[in-house]
Amino acid sequence: MSDPLPQGATIGILGGGQLGRMLSVAAARLGFRCHVYEPMANPPAAHVADVVTTAGYDDAEALRAFAASVDVITYEFENIPTAALDLLESLRPIRPNRRALAISQDRIAEKDFLTDLGLTTAPYAAVSTLADLEAAMARIGTPAILKTTRLGYDGKGQARLRSGKDAATALSAMNGADAVLEGFVNFSHEVSVIAARGLDGSVACYDPGENVHRDGILHTTTIPARLTNAQRTDAVLLAARILNALDYVGVMGVELFVTAEGLLVNEIAPRVHNSGHWTQNGCAVDQFEQHIRAVAGWPLGDGGRYADVTMENLIGDDVLRLPEIAREPQAALHLYGKTEARPGRKMGHVNRITRR
Amino acid sequence: MSDPLPQGATIGILGGGQLGRMLSVAAARLGFRCHVYEPMANPPAAHVADVVTTAGYDDAEALRAFAASVDVITYEFENIPTAALDLLESLRPIRPNRRALAISQDRIAEKDFLTDLGLTTAPYAAVSTLADLEAAMARIGTPAILKTTRLGYDGKGQARLRSGKDAATALSAMNGADAVLEGFVNFSHEVSVIAARGLDGSVACYDPGENVHRDGILHTTTIPARLTNAQRTDAVLLAARILNALDYVGVMGVELFVTAEGLLVNEIAPRVHNSGHWTQNGCAVDQFEQHIRAVAGWPLGDGGRYADVTMENLIGDDVLRLPEIAREPQAALHLYGKTEARPGRKMGHVNRITRR
Repeated sequence: MSDPLPQGATIGILGGGQLGRMLSVAAARLGFRCHVYEPMANPPAAHVADVVTTAGYDDAEALRAFAASVDVITYEFENIPTAALDLLESLRPIRPNRRALAISQDRIAEKDFLTDLGLTTAPYAAVSTLADLEAAMARIGTPAILKTTRLGYDGKGQARLRSGKDAATALSAMNGADAVLEGFVNFSHEVSVIAARGLDGSVACYDPGENVHRDGILHTTTIPARLTNAQRTDAVLLAARILNALDYVGVMGVELFVTAEGLLVNEIAPRVHNSGHWTQNGCAVDQFEQHIRAVAGWPLGDGGRYADVTMENLIGDDVLRLPEIAREPQAALHLYGKTEARPGRKMGHVNRITRR
Repeated sequence: MSDPLPQGATIGILGGGQLGRMLSVAAARLGFRCHVYEPMANPPAAHVADVVTTAGYDDAEALRAFAASVDVITYEFENIPTAALDLLESLRPIRPNRRALAISQDRIAEKDFLTDLGLTTAPYAAVSTLADLEAAMARIGTPAILKTTRLGYDGKGQARLRSGKDAATALSAMNGADAVLEGFVNFSHEVSVIAARGLDGSVACYDPGENVHRDGILHTTTIPARLTNAQRTDAVLLAARILNALDYVGVMGVELFVTAEGLLVNEIAPRVHNSGHWTQNGCAVDQFEQHIRAVAGWPLGDGGRYADVTMENLIGDDVLRLPEIAREPQAALHLYGKTEARPGRKMGHVNRITRR
């Protein structure tokens, strides 16, 4: 185990979106500098990072220079090309580690991993051929959803299957990529646990939040979530089991479905998570600082919750409401510096304190 | 009155120390970019600002380019050379305005202004000659303190006078600069009010904090301060009177002495203030965001206090205690990214929540 990073050390961040931006600010608050690596010009994180490299993940020279300039590497998204990771890992530690990334990049590996841990997921089956798909549907039933196994850069193929008649069409939508059939889950609501694990193996979880999606995008996270005490304990224990099994270092978002039969893991994200933004105004140490503390080898901070919070994402034209939101009492704004408000684009979020 | 600054607008900040750093982060949180102007290389604000200009205040070309690149100009310190301000003001609005700067740069102008407003200060008299000084001592008495009128870049001449015998020595310590004799004040403790005024004339004050100094440097600020309800009201009302009289836009720190005869104004600082750092962990909108909201023409935010806080400055070798402080529950660290811990140097601060 290495020593904690000292004041003035540099943290490399792969990805320059709003998560990289808020990680950069948290790192600065702990006295670190950030070097952001991002293929797109002028990303949100560039406004607050010490250094920005604009280069692709296939640019070995830029990747080498980036690694040489930083003390540790972390990331804000999971779909980083493997070759880039191979190169970077040979030069500097990557936290969270490659195994967490590999699992979260592959829906079947993720579900196998979770199932092997004794956790419950939606029923699933690997599908390559029409025969696979028909066998899977016979077991899992319909409705179901067919998804490509890997979350590549090339679009995410997904197809709903209402009945056996949809099989051939759905399979062709995968464009020959390996796929996974997932059964639908009858859940009452979705919650997520933002969990952190330090380099020393200590684990800290934030109180679970309850997520509401709109048009497939997270709309609100409300804390506390509707959970029984037993469910709350379950949620935290299963998150800790995942982190320990991966020898994980950093913050992870664990999405859970609440069903009559218990909690079921929807997916894991090996990074800070949109459903953890409420921690910025509900905890002494928020998810961004917690992640930086972990990857810097610092002790985890106090993630105890001191308020009830509802986080609302500001998507696209929601920013037109900024003048009113700016006047609301007990509302904390977090904007990402994006000037163009396209539909579906996350422009910022507001944390509303509903009870202290 | 101009429109509120839109997302992506740029705020120019004169001075790149920790105050400029924390202003930059607050501005980013509201979706603004920052351009920091600072003569010294690699200042703390550079790690989090979008653009940094390293140039002197006598570099007209650099000042012009800076002004051309920003939408509004603010500052983190009050001793900005007049010629630089003249040039900048001809190109972009400066907030807070020049009058606040002029008054805070001149101890006699400040005390005259406060006295004209009906506020109480320490007894004082302008001193140019030995005859002035002797007359002033006859009126004010000893002990007293002789200070240069202006807070220039060239060191701050101060000399204590225990008795009339010290007069000639004290005057010579002024090096021919105009000076002010200030009587000692018998006060029980010092408090400060962090007050804000928006472009629309609205005023919001944070709850007063109680300051303890050590070796002439702020050591702790504790909220709430020991004040009667009447004193608390007085403190807020007198701060509002100062801001309104100056048609002030932004955050001001008002230091007050608590005496048996009431509150007495020690000094005003036309900027965010070290004694207001506690607001980062005690209020939905902290002093840095409040200042940015004001200079950007936004509505002032909710400065209501939701916790008792003690802010401790981490000076010089205090950073050696970071490993322990990082483990404290309910302690929020704010470090400035300075790698060399010189004696007396402000390296960061910690806000400890003592009650919610």
